[in-house]
Amino acid sequence: MRTYFDCIPCFVRQTLDAVRFVTDDEAIQAEVLRKVLRAASEMDMRMAPPAMGQQIHRLIRRLTGQDDPYRDVKDRFNRFAMGLYPEMKARVEAAADPLAAAVRVAIAGNVIDFGVRSDLTEAAVRETIDRAMGEPICGSVDDLRDAAAEARDILFLADNAGEIVFDRVLIETLPTEKVTVVVKGRPVINDATIDDARAAGLIGRVTVIDNGSDAPGTLLDTCSDAMRKRFDDADLVIAKGQGNYETLSDSEREILFLLMAKCPVIARDLGCEQGALILRRLAQTRKDTA
Amino acid sequence: MRTYFDCIPCFVRQTLDAVRFVTDDEAIQAEVLRKVLRAASEMDMRMAPPAMGQQIHRLIRRLTGQDDPYRDVKDRFNRFAMGLYPEMKARVEAAADPLAAAVRVAIAGNVIDFGVRSDLTEAAVRETIDRAMGEPICGSVDDLRDAAAEARDILFLADNAGEIVFDRVLIETLPTEKVTVVVKGRPVINDATIDDARAAGLIGRVTVIDNGSDAPGTLLDTCSDAMRKRFDDADLVIAKGQGNYETLSDSEREILFLLMAKCPVIARDLGCEQGALILRRLAQTRKDTA
Repeated sequence: MRTYFDCIPCFVRQTLDAVRFVTDDEAIQAEVLRKVLRAASEMDMRMAPPAMGQQIHRLIRRLTGQDDPYRDVKDRFNRFAMGLYPEMKARVEAAADPLAAAVRVAIAGNVIDFGVRSDLTEAAVRETIDRAMGEPICGSVDDLRDAAAEARDILFLADNAGEIVFDRVLIETLPTEKVTVVVKGRPVINDATIDDARAAGLIGRVTVIDNGSDAPGTLLDTCSDAMRKRFDDADLVIAKGQGNYETLSDSEREILFLLMAKCPVIARDLGCEQGALILRRLAQTRKDTA
Repeated sequence: MRTYFDCIPCFVRQTLDAVRFVTDDEAIQAEVLRKVLRAASEMDMRMAPPAMGQQIHRLIRRLTGQDDPYRDVKDRFNRFAMGLYPEMKARVEAAADPLAAAVRVAIAGNVIDFGVRSDLTEAAVRETIDRAMGEPICGSVDDLRDAAAEARDILFLADNAGEIVFDRVLIETLPTEKVTVVVKGRPVINDATIDDARAAGLIGRVTVIDNGSDAPGTLLDTCSDAMRKRFDDADLVIAKGQGNYETLSDSEREILFLLMAKCPVIARDLGCEQGALILRRLAQTRKDTA
């Protein structure tokens, strides 16, 4: 997905939100804001929005000297989600269609996104799960069911810390021996890294690799060669969250996207309501964006 | 009032809103957006926000070749407000305290502000009047009553087209022979110019002058010498709307501000709720901003 004009004021708002979350130093806040405004004034709008997110958060880390400013919040939401895990598992196992229930759980977990807003509460996550369990999914769960049954090799592109525990619930309904979970190579916002895969109890259960990148999404040209090869070779790629949708929706290969459409621009791009639970299989045929 | 960090994303959003309102040409929209981002990256935050608004709207006018892009909407809201005028006059004349009622009417008119959002409807204006008539004013109407009684010379800094008809209702409760109404020297957003004073029926009823400036507020250093002299010499200055508050709240002289606090930054600066009806007399003693 390209960057839309409406993404620009949102970048600036997100920058302010993020830099305030990371530091109280107004001089640093001003410097980050000015540099992001300058970068936005020159940006290539054909790039996906996370290319700007990557720049913003590199700047924040460099100017604050904090390598992983969201570490505490990632730990907190991992613990919180692990506390919910037994209940989520039980809900899925008791469901008439466990895969459909697990898809809802995984998409609900996508609300844990500090790129969108840094004031997320645990209560809001609970409400989102409850809403997701009773709401129609925009898309067919059979697309996932069929693709997962046929595939020999499933690449699951994870999104955020905390959310990755919700993803585990879904992954455990799939043939786990075929699944490789991909996390980020370096910290960016609250995106899951290898530490979060460990906190979610995924290590040892499935193969976990990192993509070598610090983009809040999957910008393939900033990923490792090994990751790019896995991406090309996998029978099925499941991409989780807005950042992965934004960076991969125009991909040459077929991808199955799972996300909550939290922003109006993405909702419009997907042709759905804001807040909708999305399961969308995009093949090469859908190349309608410039 | 200085520019706060929170004004920056709002400038960018307002730019997009305004340039889309004025033209459908995406190349011009992109150029305006990029130039505003660049200007914002370098801006002096000690300046009042309308200094940026002035730059944004100069850019939009220059790049679209439209000298007065809000002319149609100004005409429409002048006609709409003139249609409401008899009813507003009757409400004020029937009120136990006509001056207090007229203050409410004038502040309600401040909702007609295309700088804040360009999708304002006539229905929203009607709702605002109804709300304003029943809501407490944050401030004392006696401040205005006493100052107007004492003053030999009242300078009324008008704000927007349409709104200026609401201001007329208030002005007609004051000793009109003492009143000079000040409008903008050139078109900017939907700010009232001499044409709007005429449409509101003010010409001939009171003295009307223009300030020589195209800032959406009163940036004295961009006003004419004649205007600056009147500003210094007047016994009472009544300044209407957010733009005049933002540009004059740190003035050396005493000013009586009338506005609706539509944005959260101004509401915080004033220490009131967003949406509140404000009558605030600021004297030199209140110099708490940097």
